[in-house]
Amino acid sequence: MEIEKILPEIIEKNNKKILLIVLDGLGGLPNPNTGLTELETAKIPNLHNFAKKGTCGLTIPVLPGVTPGSGPAHLSLFGYDPVEHQIGRGVLETLGIGKHLDKEDLAIRGNFATIDENRIVTDRRAGRIATEENEKLVEIISENIKEIKGIKISIYTVKEHRCAIILKGKNLNPFLIENDPEKEGNPIRKIEPLSDDAKFTSEILEEFIKQVESILKNQQTKAKTILLRGFSKIPGIQTFEEKYLLKAACISSYPMYKGLSRLVGMDIIEGLETFHNRINALIDYYKNYDFFYFHYKKTDSAGEDGNFEKKVSVLEDFDEKLPDILKLKFEAIAITGDHSTPAVLKGHSWHPVPISIVSPNIMPDYIDTFTERTCGNGLLGTFHAINVIYLLLAASLKMKKFGA
Amino acid sequence: MEIEKILPEIIEKNNKKILLIVLDGLGGLPNPNTGLTELETAKIPNLHNFAKKGTCGLTIPVLPGVTPGSGPAHLSLFGYDPVEHQIGRGVLETLGIGKHLDKEDLAIRGNFATIDENRIVTDRRAGRIATEENEKLVEIISENIKEIKGIKISIYTVKEHRCAIILKGKNLNPFLIENDPEKEGNPIRKIEPLSDDAKFTSEILEEFIKQVESILKNQQTKAKTILLRGFSKIPGIQTFEEKYLLKAACISSYPMYKGLSRLVGMDIIEGLETFHNRINALIDYYKNYDFFYFHYKKTDSAGEDGNFEKKVSVLEDFDEKLPDILKLKFEAIAITGDHSTPAVLKGHSWHPVPISIVSPNIMPDYIDTFTERTCGNGLLGTFHAINVIYLLLAASLKMKKFGA
Repeated sequence: MEIEKILPEIIEKNNKKILLIVLDGLGGLPNPNTGLTELETAKIPNLHNFAKKGTCGLTIPVLPGVTPGSGPAHLSLFGYDPVEHQIGRGVLETLGIGKHLDKEDLAIRGNFATIDENRIVTDRRAGRIATEENEKLVEIISENIKEIKGIKISIYTVKEHRCAIILKGKNLNPFLIENDPEKEGNPIRKIEPLSDDAKFTSEILEEFIKQVESILKNQQTKAKTILLRGFSKIPGIQTFEEKYLLKAACISSYPMYKGLSRLVGMDIIEGLETFHNRINALIDYYKNYDFFYFHYKKTDSAGEDGNFEKKVSVLEDFDEKLPDILKLKFEAIAITGDHSTPAVLKGHSWHPVPISIVSPNIMPDYIDTFTERTCGNGLLGTFHAINVIYLLLAASLKMKKFGA
Repeated sequence: MEIEKILPEIIEKNNKKILLIVLDGLGGLPNPNTGLTELETAKIPNLHNFAKKGTCGLTIPVLPGVTPGSGPAHLSLFGYDPVEHQIGRGVLETLGIGKHLDKEDLAIRGNFATIDENRIVTDRRAGRIATEENEKLVEIISENIKEIKGIKISIYTVKEHRCAIILKGKNLNPFLIENDPEKEGNPIRKIEPLSDDAKFTSEILEEFIKQVESILKNQQTKAKTILLRGFSKIPGIQTFEEKYLLKAACISSYPMYKGLSRLVGMDIIEGLETFHNRINALIDYYKNYDFFYFHYKKTDSAGEDGNFEKKVSVLEDFDEKLPDILKLKFEAIAITGDHSTPAVLKGHSWHPVPISIVSPNIMPDYIDTFTERTCGNGLLGTFHAINVIYLLLAASLKMKKFGA
């Protein structure tokens, strides 16, 4: 990124505080019955008032037309190029269940699967076994396989047929061919190294699969083997402290977002199950940090479920609590989303996301409602989400003059 | 380009269809007498209605301030970086007269020119000889020069003093100094290689020029030699099928646009001289393709002629036929131009070009007229034309989520 070339020269520390509020999956699309989006339908006077005081726009999460997962979308908002810093599936799965990863660790997604006597994969999901069955199998495997060739192996239940595996030790390398044949009816593959450096890791995993299969043979389950995918290590990323001179805190109750925040060096405030907890955490830890990432998940969940009314109502819930958040003094506050999750599409989408930034140092525009279509006419225009953090740093006067 | 790094991972095929309508040279500037542009003057209710249903914006053809030729402007709309993929003048001239080029071929622009006994170029255009005279000379040259050192040579009339030359064979190399001295009064140059690999090609061309001169000596014409310029081969470009998994068709009656479309792997529907033909082709071939590029040339021609009224009237002609095009079902339709050709400038210009995209999956905005100034306030904002194809792929749900 262009700005990273000059950032070390212009960034400076001060005692002003920044708040980034991420309403997950914020953006929507019109309900065909009314022609109005979730934001346009909801009664959200406090958000509208925030937009009125702020400078508004729309953010492109990654690139025009690209629908991002939560990982890339959050990296963008945190100011990291998500194409340059791709987070492997194994790492994301592991972060999602709240496991900590060290730099050397190899993270893997696993599927319990069914194979026949000729090693043909007949069901890539082992009949989508129940989570409880998965937990039982994982317990037996954990008891029996602790280490192979000096590499510590941990396996965790994710959900149904899915699990996560972490390898701990030296010289682990993710450049491997997955054993998942991708289509049922094909034989399970061998884990093979894509480079010489990955030979050691492939041997460990082949041995691991062999041992898992021999354990599963004695269990009453459709799971006969384990498909291993998404081999990855955490990307080497500059922390918030290194890059922006910011001491940053994550206020979220979801493992995946806590994991992503830990990746960029934020401190994770734990035990924040309720919205009330999270607002209190903001108050309690206010003095300790320069930057707060405040995450609200319900908007995304409702959108994913295709529940338009629910998304409207959780927006209204958030709106009701917003004044409590705004009682604290921040030099710059942004309210935005990581991506759109329109209820009509029942999933993430590429559509630009509303944003409003309030600060004594921004130019308020004429926008006085917080919706996709009004923010689109705001002074910030339609811009890449990766610039949000730089606008916040600027609004909190943390960036010096570039050149003389 | 950034998106090309992740495209193979996220692109997927489905049975939804895309239509890209290019009104060549669409954008205009105000008529000094009325203060209104061509689009603002024309009676175009169907285009306005299209804008009303769609999401609008302005596209920057190549880069801010850069006036593109048809080649770069179309490459942008097709999603290829026109700075990275430069199409040589020789290739464009050859495509413009409808000649097919293979990968190994070397394409060259030629000018018949006048030189005196000291080989000083006295007229770079040989008095702009008539096209008929050009045709006569080309015929005689073609009869007498068919091959030099195993390289097949073909020469074609373009117009007036201009011709195109294609060399076919092995080891042809375009890194050559042109023999055109650029200014009259200077001596004609030698074709010289810019690298050792181009020595063979330079020898062939020097021999070709010598033979052409000896033929012209016996003709009653001001043309005494031939200036060779724009040595080029077709750029190695991923096809639409390779890059986007799209089976694409070109619906145009002009050789240059057919040639550009062939470069990116589109099938060319031939014999579409009238607008009526072209609409019928869309209907006839609807089932066979995922993507249609529909080209309308008259807007550009009128703009180039500086004929404001004509440009208004051909816009109205197009508008009248638009409903016939829109009867077919496309998941995503864009109407835009490749660049602006304001009648007041009598040529291409750098001004951003109106665009509207209609799809069930886009966010309609508040714009309800299709003009330069209204589209500028649309939700798409002002953006690079190279993103148009990605917005169309997204709107037709052909791009999967990036990352998890």
